[in-house]
Amino acid sequence: MNSGIRTDLAMEAEALRQADAIPSGVRAVRQRRGSFYITTVEVLNARGEAALGKPVGTYVTLELDAYLRREENAFSEAAELLADELRALLHLNRGELCLVVGLGNRDITPDAIGPETVDCVMVTRHLTSRLPEAFGSFRPVSAVCSGVLGTTGIESSDLVRAIVDRLRPSAVIAVDALASREPQRLCRTVQLSDTGIIPGSGVGNARQALNRETLGVPVVAVGVPTVVDAATLTLDLAASAGADISGVDFGEACAMIVTPREIDKNVRDTAKLIGYALNLALHDGLRVEDVDMFLS
Amino acid sequence: MNSGIRTDLAMEAEALRQADAIPSGVRAVRQRRGSFYITTVEVLNARGEAALGKPVGTYVTLELDAYLRREENAFSEAAELLADELRALLHLNRGELCLVVGLGNRDITPDAIGPETVDCVMVTRHLTSRLPEAFGSFRPVSAVCSGVLGTTGIESSDLVRAIVDRLRPSAVIAVDALASREPQRLCRTVQLSDTGIIPGSGVGNARQALNRETLGVPVVAVGVPTVVDAATLTLDLAASAGADISGVDFGEACAMIVTPREIDKNVRDTAKLIGYALNLALHDGLRVEDVDMFLS
Amino acid sequence: MNSGIRTDLAMEAEALRQADAIPSGVRAVRQRRGSFYITTVEVLNARGEAALGKPVGTYVTLELDAYLRREENAFSEAAELLADELRALLHLNRGELCLVVGLGNRDITPDAIGPETVDCVMVTRHLTSRLPEAFGSFRPVSAVCSGVLGTTGIESSDLVRAIVDRLRPSAVIAVDALASREPQRLCRTVQLSDTGIIPGSGVGNARQALNRETLGVPVVAVGVPTVVDAATLTLDLAASAGADISGVDFGEACAMIVTPREIDKNVRDTAKLIGYALNLALHDGLRVEDVDMFLS
Amino acid sequence: MNSGIRTDLAMEAEALRQADAIPSGVRAVRQRRGSFYITTVEVLNARGEAALGKPVGTYVTLELDAYLRREENAFSEAAELLADELRALLHLNRGELCLVVGLGNRDITPDAIGPETVDCVMVTRHLTSRLPEAFGSFRPVSAVCSGVLGTTGIESSDLVRAIVDRLRPSAVIAVDALASREPQRLCRTVQLSDTGIIPGSGVGNARQALNRETLGVPVVAVGVPTVVDAATLTLDLAASAGADISGVDFGEACAMIVTPREIDKNVRDTAKLIGYALNLALHDGLRVEDVDMFLS
Repeated sequence: MNSGIRTDLAMEAEALRQADAIPSGVRAVRQRRGSFYITTVEVLNARGEAALGKPVGTYVTLELDAYLRREENAFSEAAELLADELRALLHLNRGELCLVVGLGNRDITPDAIGPETVDCVMVTRHLTSRLPEAFGSFRPVSAVCSGVLGTTGIESSDLVRAIVDRLRPSAVIAVDALASREPQRLCRTVQLSDTGIIPGSGVGNARQALNRETLGVPVVAVGVPTVVDAATLTLDLAASAGADISGVDFGEACAMIVTPREIDKNVRDTAKLIGYALNLALHDGLRVEDVDMFLS
Repeated sequence: MNSGIRTDLAMEAEALRQADAIPSGVRAVRQRRGSFYITTVEVLNARGEAALGKPVGTYVTLELDAYLRREENAFSEAAELLADELRALLHLNRGELCLVVGLGNRDITPDAIGPETVDCVMVTRHLTSRLPEAFGSFRPVSAVCSGVLGTTGIESSDLVRAIVDRLRPSAVIAVDALASREPQRLCRTVQLSDTGIIPGSGVGNARQALNRETLGVPVVAVGVPTVVDAATLTLDLAASAGADISGVDFGEACAMIVTPREIDKNVRDTAKLIGYALNLALHDGLRVEDVDMFLS
Repeated sequence: MNSGIRTDLAMEAEALRQADAIPSGVRAVRQRRGSFYITTVEVLNARGEAALGKPVGTYVTLELDAYLRREENAFSEAAELLADELRALLHLNRGELCLVVGLGNRDITPDAIGPETVDCVMVTRHLTSRLPEAFGSFRPVSAVCSGVLGTTGIESSDLVRAIVDRLRPSAVIAVDALASREPQRLCRTVQLSDTGIIPGSGVGNARQALNRETLGVPVVAVGVPTVVDAATLTLDLAASAGADISGVDFGEACAMIVTPREIDKNVRDTAKLIGYALNLALHDGLRVEDVDMFLS
Repeated sequence: MNSGIRTDLAMEAEALRQADAIPSGVRAVRQRRGSFYITTVEVLNARGEAALGKPVGTYVTLELDAYLRREENAFSEAAELLADELRALLHLNRGELCLVVGLGNRDITPDAIGPETVDCVMVTRHLTSRLPEAFGSFRPVSAVCSGVLGTTGIESSDLVRAIVDRLRPSAVIAVDALASREPQRLCRTVQLSDTGIIPGSGVGNARQALNRETLGVPVVAVGVPTVVDAATLTLDLAASAGADISGVDFGEACAMIVTPREIDKNVRDTAKLIGYALNLALHDGLRVEDVDMFLS
């Protein structure tokens, strides 16, 4: 019945939208933090997995609501909030290496969240080792874009595994675009989870998972919904109209995506926010102004 | 009844889709030319205008069907076909100056058809005047991107008028993105017309018209549909399902657009095709290889 | 004897470098303002013109010394200093329209200062007229990139004149790349002057002047040296070595330019600084944070 | 005596410029092939290494002389010539995997030869394995950009080694920017060699070598000179003037580079030529038109 509906957001799972009660094996709570709402969904066991179709773990979604840019200090507040949530999922000790991976295709705008985030990450691994007197208080951080199979001939997951094998980081943060089912969430929500990620699930086909099992280290996924399948949008609108569209041929609509008109700008802005949040989460005592100066 | 449905393609007008007969005051014919189909819609008089909601004039639509890129020589064939149709609408005499205007916003991918086409136009005005011995056989051609109101503070139409007043070209070709109502037409059709164009009708709000009345010279519009309004898509699909969605709140869907997944690449490819067609139409005896060499 | 030496900076004029005393008809003073040095050269009359090879007027050069980016608040301080100097040259009354023109070629990095500055200018003309209740306190500002003759077929000066004729601004600010003779000045100095500018003098050939005579309104030029002619560098180094290189064939060296290794980043950073300074100069009571928010 | 002179081209070695006879342990020959000249320098043994300052191996330099773009078919002819030379150095058997690595920094124009070449490489590894019926006649090829230490925190050589360890290709082709000592060679010559490469030697500091010893597979280096050190240019010009500039302080000149005015366009064009040559060398029976179609 739900077939055709596609979403990567735990908080959009059908079971959480429709049920009168939260399903067994799942905990979900939405709370306000300053100017923002945060929804935390925990999948506790196999029953929760079955109900939500997501693996056991924690999924945190920050809503960057519409007035984000309008309120003074909204950028800083959102970045620091995201940083707090990231730190809680990462459990990194002082001085441990973190690898940031930007998944997705830089040349396809709605798929460029990962690569554009990497552009805003403070890369410090070479500085902490070579100039310890100046950079000793920073965490060593490396960052790479995995590219996509179509342009490298290498699965993203293979490339990440090769790099993890060589660098042996203590944690991996993987940033990717996601698919959502609700247009109003596009480029306005960020989902964090400690369950890892399957590269390419946002735009294009699923590949092999990047998670603790496959990489041997904790993997925190950071995802931003940038598209709704045209078919998903239509199914949801039809359902709310009570229409029977079982006989409609979606044909070309399936090769189409729904995005905000200003997708280029939205992707750039959201990538910057995530990049800054990563920097604040990874280095102690850093402020937004410090990141400005480091990256400039 | 049609309210909410939005299209810039004459061949998609409701009157041509639904009527058993072509309305009075309109002529429409679809014919095969080599590997491609061309639809010519002529709005002959006020009755035709009322029926189609388009001003009197000729609208030629070339279908760059799916296998465009796959067939050997398809690029050359399509470019030459487009060039033939352009020449028929332009009526330029030898040596007369032509101004090519790229409308739209280069930074918003589906709105970048105009600016990217200008990148592929052979600009020769300064060469024909300064090096007549070498470039005497070329037509003088100038090309500008008008920018958009939001980034220049100047209406596109004002900017074009100012330049036309100074350069006094014999014709203007204005290239812009359009809105379509059928996903399968996106980046696969090119509409030419001798009625001019209203900048920004493809993405964003309508501005003042660019046509023979406002500019004092003939204006040929070249448009490519790159988006479908999310609301338009939904209305059309619902109608084909016989659903009553009059009570549905489209809300966020209205701020959304539907585009092909590969919109970045599609816009680049189509802009190149149009640019080459313009070059072939404007300069006598030119071949695709000559354009390659000139632009490289 | 100096033939072959090329510079667009008044402060680098041979007469100011070599003379024991400042030539008659010229006033020149260098003073510290906060963390920066400012040199003001005034060409007072025909004797000054002859001595310096620059038209009568004021030339203000701000030295953005090496530690610019390292000092806290250096960006704000430099932007505000530049804004002060700009205001002193502009003499605009409240509510008068200003047109900002980015000269040069965006696709040639050392020539992209003008276009990249325009990207950082707050364009408000359409907002002040349409939303006076919200934007009434802003000055109306328009901004265009003139393109270059090779890609538009239109002289920059013709294009600017056409737009000025239509918009009738109270002043024009023209931003362009310059040539310097000292490598250490590249991307580290900004020259303002009230004498206008000759587009393309930085990279490529000189075109017609943009100044009060040709445009009918005051023209303030903002220039940044981004290149040294390879031939100029060599002549200067040879001179300081006392070498006679009169017989050397510079040949290919003449088609070459000397730029900083990090020219891409330097151009981006300097363009941002100038853009912000323009905004502070044009709108009363604005702070750097306000510009951040407006442009984001 | 040569100190300060920097070049990565074997054919520019001082020993080959000055000596009346080619040094012992070296073989060098320059011959015309169609419209182009090819210089082959072979370093045969330790004496040759000492004389040229380059490791034992073969260095082939193709001169893409000035009229390259002007002659009809020059692009195809140059691409095929380069492909022939590449095949002779590669010794790949049918069906063996080749990894193409783009070294350097895409965001610094003269260092972007490697990444831009990768954009023109036909990536086929995933196609040959998944669609053998359609792509069985193609060689499996993967391609990655290594990024640079400053933006990834990972040595290029470490990243390449990690990928080679996982993919186990039969050969690696590494493409990078080089430094030259003669301005007229910039973006007009391509050097191939079977001795591998030290990433970053063109712009910035030398890193660890990529060669058969470090990677365990043959490494063919493809390099294009894009810069001359400002100091090198000056030293050479001064030498030809017989000037003693031993006391001159090069100071800032050392942080500067000399490049062609049109470096952006030149890098793009040369990268395309190399990309096409790689494709012709790696896949049997391919023509330039086939590459056009594959990449479009």
